[in-house]
Amino acid sequence: MAGDHEQRETPVSMTLAEARDLLARANRILAHEGVLDAFGHVSLRHPTNSQRYLLSRSRGPELVQPEDVLEFDLDSAPIKPPTARLYSERVIHGEIFKARPEVMAVCHHHASSILPFCVTGTVMRPVNHLGATMGVKVPLWDSRDEFGNTNLIVAKPEEGASLARALGPNWTVLMRRHGATVAGRTLEELVFRCIYTVRNAAMQIQAEMLGGFEPLNAEETELAGSFNLQPGPLDRAWEYWSARLDKVEGANTAKLKVSKVKRAAPKTAAASKSAKKKATKRVKRRR
Amino acid sequence: MAGDHEQRETPVSMTLAEARDLLARANRILAHEGVLDAFGHVSLRHPTNSQRYLLSRSRGPELVQPEDVLEFDLDSAPIKPPTARLYSERVIHGEIFKARPEVMAVCHHHASSILPFCVTGTVMRPVNHLGATMGVKVPLWDSRDEFGNTNLIVAKPEEGASLARALGPNWTVLMRRHGATVAGRTLEELVFRCIYTVRNAAMQIQAEMLGGFEPLNAEETELAGSFNLQPGPLDRAWEYWSARLDKVEGANTAKLKVSKVKRAAPKTAAASKSAKKKATKRVKRRR
Amino acid sequence: MAGDHEQRETPVSMTLAEARDLLARANRILAHEGVLDAFGHVSLRHPTNSQRYLLSRSRGPELVQPEDVLEFDLDSAPIKPPTARLYSERVIHGEIFKARPEVMAVCHHHASSILPFCVTGTVMRPVNHLGATMGVKVPLWDSRDEFGNTNLIVAKPEEGASLARALGPNWTVLMRRHGATVAGRTLEELVFRCIYTVRNAAMQIQAEMLGGFEPLNAEETELAGSFNLQPGPLDRAWEYWSARLDKVEGANTAKLKVSKVKRAAPKTAAASKSAKKKATKRVKRRR
Amino acid sequence: MAGDHEQRETPVSMTLAEARDLLARANRILAHEGVLDAFGHVSLRHPTNSQRYLLSRSRGPELVQPEDVLEFDLDSAPIKPPTARLYSERVIHGEIFKARPEVMAVCHHHASSILPFCVTGTVMRPVNHLGATMGVKVPLWDSRDEFGNTNLIVAKPEEGASLARALGPNWTVLMRRHGATVAGRTLEELVFRCIYTVRNAAMQIQAEMLGGFEPLNAEETELAGSFNLQPGPLDRAWEYWSARLDKVEGANTAKLKVSKVKRAAPKTAAASKSAKKKATKRVKRRR
Repeated sequence: MAGDHEQRETPVSMTLAEARDLLARANRILAHEGVLDAFGHVSLRHPTNSQRYLLSRSRGPELVQPEDVLEFDLDSAPIKPPTARLYSERVIHGEIFKARPEVMAVCHHHASSILPFCVTGTVMRPVNHLGATMGVKVPLWDSRDEFGNTNLIVAKPEEGASLARALGPNWTVLMRRHGATVAGRTLEELVFRCIYTVRNAAMQIQAEMLGGFEPLNAEETELAGSFNLQPGPLDRAWEYWSARLDKVEGANTAKLKVSKVKRAAPKTAAASKSAKKKATKRVKRRR
Repeated sequence: MAGDHEQRETPVSMTLAEARDLLARANRILAHEGVLDAFGHVSLRHPTNSQRYLLSRSRGPELVQPEDVLEFDLDSAPIKPPTARLYSERVIHGEIFKARPEVMAVCHHHASSILPFCVTGTVMRPVNHLGATMGVKVPLWDSRDEFGNTNLIVAKPEEGASLARALGPNWTVLMRRHGATVAGRTLEELVFRCIYTVRNAAMQIQAEMLGGFEPLNAEETELAGSFNLQPGPLDRAWEYWSARLDKVEGANTAKLKVSKVKRAAPKTAAASKSAKKKATKRVKRRR
Repeated sequence: MAGDHEQRETPVSMTLAEARDLLARANRILAHEGVLDAFGHVSLRHPTNSQRYLLSRSRGPELVQPEDVLEFDLDSAPIKPPTARLYSERVIHGEIFKARPEVMAVCHHHASSILPFCVTGTVMRPVNHLGATMGVKVPLWDSRDEFGNTNLIVAKPEEGASLARALGPNWTVLMRRHGATVAGRTLEELVFRCIYTVRNAAMQIQAEMLGGFEPLNAEETELAGSFNLQPGPLDRAWEYWSARLDKVEGANTAKLKVSKVKRAAPKTAAASKSAKKKATKRVKRRR
Repeated sequence: MAGDHEQRETPVSMTLAEARDLLARANRILAHEGVLDAFGHVSLRHPTNSQRYLLSRSRGPELVQPEDVLEFDLDSAPIKPPTARLYSERVIHGEIFKARPEVMAVCHHHASSILPFCVTGTVMRPVNHLGATMGVKVPLWDSRDEFGNTNLIVAKPEEGASLARALGPNWTVLMRRHGATVAGRTLEELVFRCIYTVRNAAMQIQAEMLGGFEPLNAEETELAGSFNLQPGPLDRAWEYWSARLDKVEGANTAKLKVSKVKRAAPKTAAASKSAKKKATKRVKRRR
């Protein structure tokens, strides 16, 4: 989305260990907030090698721990020989990371409120400023167009590439008779977009049933989407979902604040200043 | 609402500490009962200075503690220099406190059941006596009318003032493509109105889908609304939501009854009698 | 309902203490299962004096303990001078106990799934055998017919009597723009009927939205309703809801089995045999 | 479903004790995931005697423990004289086990999202690949056709046989004005099919309300259904639901992995190799 608001970026000085931990948390947050269940998955581009990405082994997201997180190249081949099952649909992530250099995180899900839009002609539209984070345009991809009747699993590189083409420069793509795939410039932005798009979909269905639904227009969608993806709202929402997860997992939030921030040694003095600034952001983010 | 029923008032003898504690609890009650999530906020006019109000720093309401509660003047400027982010939309509170001297509490939310009414032409109406607390009239405000396409955030004083004008003498105003703002003569009344209006909205949508919906008429709405905002129903509901919150937070209710009531020294003998009567009320309220 | 199936009766040898404990549990079960929230109430006719009934003081049902349970005469006057607020609408219970000698328990509620039927013309009908317990006929009472515009609270004896007349020989009566009132020949039957009628209502709304809803016919409703109100299904459901309540309250179920059965000394040898048989039933019921 | 994908089978080397434990867990998983409540039940064909099946005594599934699981012959007579009530509708299981030698598990339920399809003319169809596990065809059985007005309880052998005929070679049969019955080639497959069919039904109702619902076609349904019933997806989902159950029950998953796998001594060297391979599968399954 255009605009010169401060973009939130997963800092390049994040270590691989921090990235695995953050991604594992994002898995469990998205599960706890109803976006993911036994199926679906979320990835994070490698913090120091843009030609790799991180994704859990095949496991329900609610259960994902840092040690489950594996590394893949952009062809979705595992870097190390796998000792556990892998997600069949990991090409969804690899192909989007290839097509979109600015995308740092991808989520594929089958959230219940979204599916009705994937099997009818109704276009997903924002009901309010928070849903505007879905993006101005939400394309619809139908595997049948290119591939005919399949088992609907996006497992082949060409299927992932087709989906990435359908996503285009947008942030959310619906997959006919399947679910949705969402992209973000940071993991926090991705999580925010997933959750609020899922909430928005449920409200839109209710509005469609009342009749006379008038959504945000394109300019409102751009302005509101940009606003809500600034650090203020993103931090506030992440802290909230993170604290809720901690409650459910019985963790001590204060303890977590300390333990989750593992600061990498900066490479240069300039990077040091930058790292210091970003580390301060990371502390706030992990509440 | 007219009528000579006993009005429940947040007693003027409440100390600032008690007010901050009560407001923090109201934040967490509204979050726990599904009115607020990561976003939205609730305020309380200062107990001893009507030209100030209390509002948390920018934080998900479910997490708000007394120490998060800050003081603002009615232009929504913080009294002390802020050390944390502030809610962007605090002018909603300040402008309503200016416009409505009898209002002691305000809540701004985006509850899911309300949004469908904010994006369609359907008028919100009470399905039963509890929903009647929404008020006889629920106006609809559209920021586009005065301000054109915006990011929908009510951040500028003139936007807050416009919303306050739309609210008028009513208790609930819907905000097109955004959410709702609710006012109350006490914090308990506000919380009651928020929760039961949200429940009512969900039931009204179901009724609209069955067809042939006939709500309460204006006189029933006034009579039922008045009745349910008396101390009896308000206390009962507050005790219920408070106890549910305590269960979730793992608190000991008996312990809370003692610790939460911090009695202020009354100023005069007359105030002493009055304070004694109101303190008795406060004990019941905080269960 | 006609039929010579074994009827489940709250045994006359239950002591007052056991009755208060059972009623308090029923309050908390109905709250936990979504029939009651801050409002609504449930009563039990006195186990040894049919001219009295038991009802909690005014309190959210989720919080009701045995010591909250008070005694009333059938004019709904408290037997002892009250030291706490009483439910304004207790005449609902008293008037139904007067009109229906076989009724041992009454519940008044505002469950969300029922309200849409209270404000539209749609008739409540069973979707399956469990919902058949609502009864073959579910009348609709409108306070406006006799009383014009009111605050909808059924507080006056004549209002309660009017409602009891509308209930007639049936088991469930809907109250326009208010909620529902349900009767039962035992407390277990009442709880079963309340919960399954509330579940049924939600399913019927969905069925109405799909279109072409065909409910159980009158004979199926009678047969299925009778079947499900036998001791087998009633015990099974009570055990289930009771165990769920214990989990939420952190109680030890095994401990409860022993402690909750306080056997009264039977009056005669015949009553002794009968009491022994009913005590065995009570053990099963309280699991 | 046709296809040469690896089928997951409950291994014949499972002991009776392991089978009872697995079935008890399946009961509690299905209750926790919203398929079963106080009513409904799930069975497993005896691991070493195809002329018998396992089913709990009459009890809410959420409460079923291994010691509740009893043995029945295919006429649904208990092998040992019963000391507790039995499910009235156990003939549903016996008759399907008779009619379908490949079926190893059966579930009968009244899940809320399914009932609207049981009382209207709407045909249940998959919205996505996970719902495709319902099968290509979902027949509808109406007890009234053969038996006229009844209490809707499928208690007589001829009623169970009629239902089994209606199920035919399919995997899910809807029961008019009652609920549904589901079959599976293994218990894990059955649980997966139950849960995802229930989720699918809720999404289909929403899609029907938006209008223009286009489901998976027959070939997609076959391909997607087959894919999702392979060990990969089945294991992942079982682990997820099992872990969620453990959290709710406060159990230690690591501890459970060890205690639940009781390996039977294999009969021959060949069986030993096979048992070793299947035991490895069992360890993964029980996570």
